[in-house]
Amino acid sequence: FESKLPNLGTSIFSQMTALANQFEAINLSQGFPEFDAPELLKKQLNHYVLEGVNQYSPSSGVPRLQQQIAQLAKRKYAAEIDAAQQVTVTSGATEALFVAIQALVREGDEVIVFDPAYDSYQPAIELAGGKSVNIALHAPSYAIDWQTVAAAINSKTRAIIINTPHNPSGKTLKQHDINALKALVIKHDLYLISDEVYEHITFDQQPHLSVLRDDELFARSYVISSFGKTFHSTGWKMGYCIASAALAVEFRKIHQYVTFSSFTPAQHALADMLEQQGEHVDELSEFYQQKRDVLSNALKDSRFTILPSEGTYFLLLDYSDVSDLNDVEFCQWLVEQAGVAAIPLSVFYQQPSNDKVIRLCFAKNDATLLQAAEILCQL
Amino acid sequence: FESKLPNLGTSIFSQMTALANQFEAINLSQGFPEFDAPELLKKQLNHYVLEGVNQYSPSSGVPRLQQQIAQLAKRKYAAEIDAAQQVTVTSGATEALFVAIQALVREGDEVIVFDPAYDSYQPAIELAGGKSVNIALHAPSYAIDWQTVAAAINSKTRAIIINTPHNPSGKTLKQHDINALKALVIKHDLYLISDEVYEHITFDQQPHLSVLRDDELFARSYVISSFGKTFHSTGWKMGYCIASAALAVEFRKIHQYVTFSSFTPAQHALADMLEQQGEHVDELSEFYQQKRDVLSNALKDSRFTILPSEGTYFLLLDYSDVSDLNDVEFCQWLVEQAGVAAIPLSVFYQQPSNDKVIRLCFAKNDATLLQAAEILCQL
Ligand SMILES: CSCCC(=O)C(=O)O
Ligand SMILES: CSCCC(=O)C(=O)O
Repeated sequence: FESKLPNLGTSIFSQMTALANQFEAINLSQGFPEFDAPELLKKQLNHYVLEGVNQYSPSSGVPRLQQQIAQLAKRKYAAEIDAAQQVTVTSGATEALFVAIQALVREGDEVIVFDPAYDSYQPAIELAGGKSVNIALHAPSYAIDWQTVAAAINSKTRAIIINTPHNPSGKTLKQHDINALKALVIKHDLYLISDEVYEHITFDQQPHLSVLRDDELFARSYVISSFGKTFHSTGWKMGYCIASAALAVEFRKIHQYVTFSSFTPAQHALADMLEQQGEHVDELSEFYQQKRDVLSNALKDSRFTILPSEGTYFLLLDYSDVSDLNDVEFCQWLVEQAGVAAIPLSVFYQQPSNDKVIRLCFAKNDATLLQAAEILCQL
Repeated sequence: FESKLPNLGTSIFSQMTALANQFEAINLSQGFPEFDAPELLKKQLNHYVLEGVNQYSPSSGVPRLQQQIAQLAKRKYAAEIDAAQQVTVTSGATEALFVAIQALVREGDEVIVFDPAYDSYQPAIELAGGKSVNIALHAPSYAIDWQTVAAAINSKTRAIIINTPHNPSGKTLKQHDINALKALVIKHDLYLISDEVYEHITFDQQPHLSVLRDDELFARSYVISSFGKTFHSTGWKMGYCIASAALAVEFRKIHQYVTFSSFTPAQHALADMLEQQGEHVDELSEFYQQKRDVLSNALKDSRFTILPSEGTYFLLLDYSDVSDLNDVEFCQWLVEQAGVAAIPLSVFYQQPSNDKVIRLCFAKNDATLLQAAEILCQL
């Protein structure tokens, strides 16, 4: 039985969490919060379950939730979204990414991906018969050279995938990036998949430059977000995709045959949450900025070099002064011997990278962050 | 923007439910129960949500649930399943079907499908670059002629998809079918996708002939089931796939990039349900047989011809004596003018079928079934 994904095994996130559990290490590897979903969200979920709202939702999502999503896009990005036609609720952002890629990518198409890249992009592109063209970005700036991107575009290029704020680097795209991207997308008649799952987590007063802010770029885009990141509920697997009506039609055709619909009571509960406690979303950046600062400050006197994190709940550390091991070996050592689980950056690259960088997730209680920092400061 | 699924629109189930709502018709179209999930299941879901079990589960599923699934397979089919390696929990059977097809089907492969067929098979095959070879079965017996199947196999044939008990016909495969299928699968080195989402709903004391009962056939199979059907919770989108360890590896590679994992608290609640109220599963056939009989008896004096239903929660009616319209027109008329929503059988066929048959879902309260029957008896 030959594999359709011969070079892939179990995702690094699953592997590292399993190792963290095995060695009883502090788990700063896989990205999920140590704290719980908001009380109101949990209460409302339970309410709808007990009330008996337990059968299929419409495939595109519960209308009330579609509307709340559209309103949030309007409030935050001044985007005019037709909820019924343009918003599709999915079983997590992972499903949304997979479906968007299936909708766009045909046999032989090329898709430009920036490394370090989230691990699902490339297999999804390959399963659709396409090929990812990976442009590597590196520490400490992870800046995109748009001339390199322009040079990578050819007649087979179908789409570009961006991710801002960026997992794992914590980098956010700036207005000049969006301008350069837009020029290329329009000039070469490309499509854009914009992975914005950390849209509500940006630091130091920086606004999130959502593709939803730009009508012309948005017209060629699938914009993807995640309630798991926003509402500390990664295990609920709720996300969504916003697109023009024309692009949404193709997305929905495929979505209805991938999962059909998502957990109905959670959709109603999320609608209530957005309606009644919109401030949760607005306070998220400050909440995570404090976490970032707790971890950064506690690592100040370590031998790690802290890279800037402008968003997401991840912080990168350069460990060149700590160890000569490569990053995979170093993370293995770290979880087994030091009791801290982290993610090696090289796994996010298609071509092996020699950067000595690891990723820590700071979506943890302060006590956990301080405990991990104490260990890391001793290395 | 050219479509990858140019001939497809919104699924018939979504369309008919929307029409039923619009015309305030009795909705016997899309397959979902009118009654609620068991109290224990809802209670336990709420318990885990409140307890804070709201982050990612392992991608293959919560181990306790995998074990309960393996135990059920052992109790019911005497199958020896390694829960950790062979059971993968999915976001509904739809996801499981999609992933199994992605795992098996490569560019140019052919997959044998029996029409009338569940609507997701063909688009999933096409998105994987394959081609469905549809063998049409017809009312009233929907019997499979295995010589026709043998003749349809060629060097490109990769897999066969079966569905037993069968949606929409309510037909179950018999031992001679399984024997013939097994001979072909082994002789031609094929794979099997066995859609058994109605496995616990068979009537008149007939056992369900799961592929899990046959080691040799199972070794080449993805066996798919659904908690939505079993526990009256279609909106929870919980299903699973059982396969040999080797086939499960490939399934899981893809599953981790399609949805990664499913609603965590529901997985724990389902484990509790299977552990504490296994009798729910054992009583399901009797429960639905009574429903089938209520509806059939109430239609006895109608001008519809009732076709036999051996399993599932669907009943087919031949309406030749009621109307000359084709089945799509008839269902349109039925929902608009008579106030009953049903599914036309022809939509389950790749090649237009002229059978005058409609499908009714009897997963409804007796009062609803009697009310619908009263209307149908007047036609
Ligand atoms: C779906 S597991 C991966 C979680 C995550 O987003 C990450 O750790 O980067
Ligand atoms: C996912 S909607 C379809 C439900 C169903 O199984 C059916 O009606 O056949």
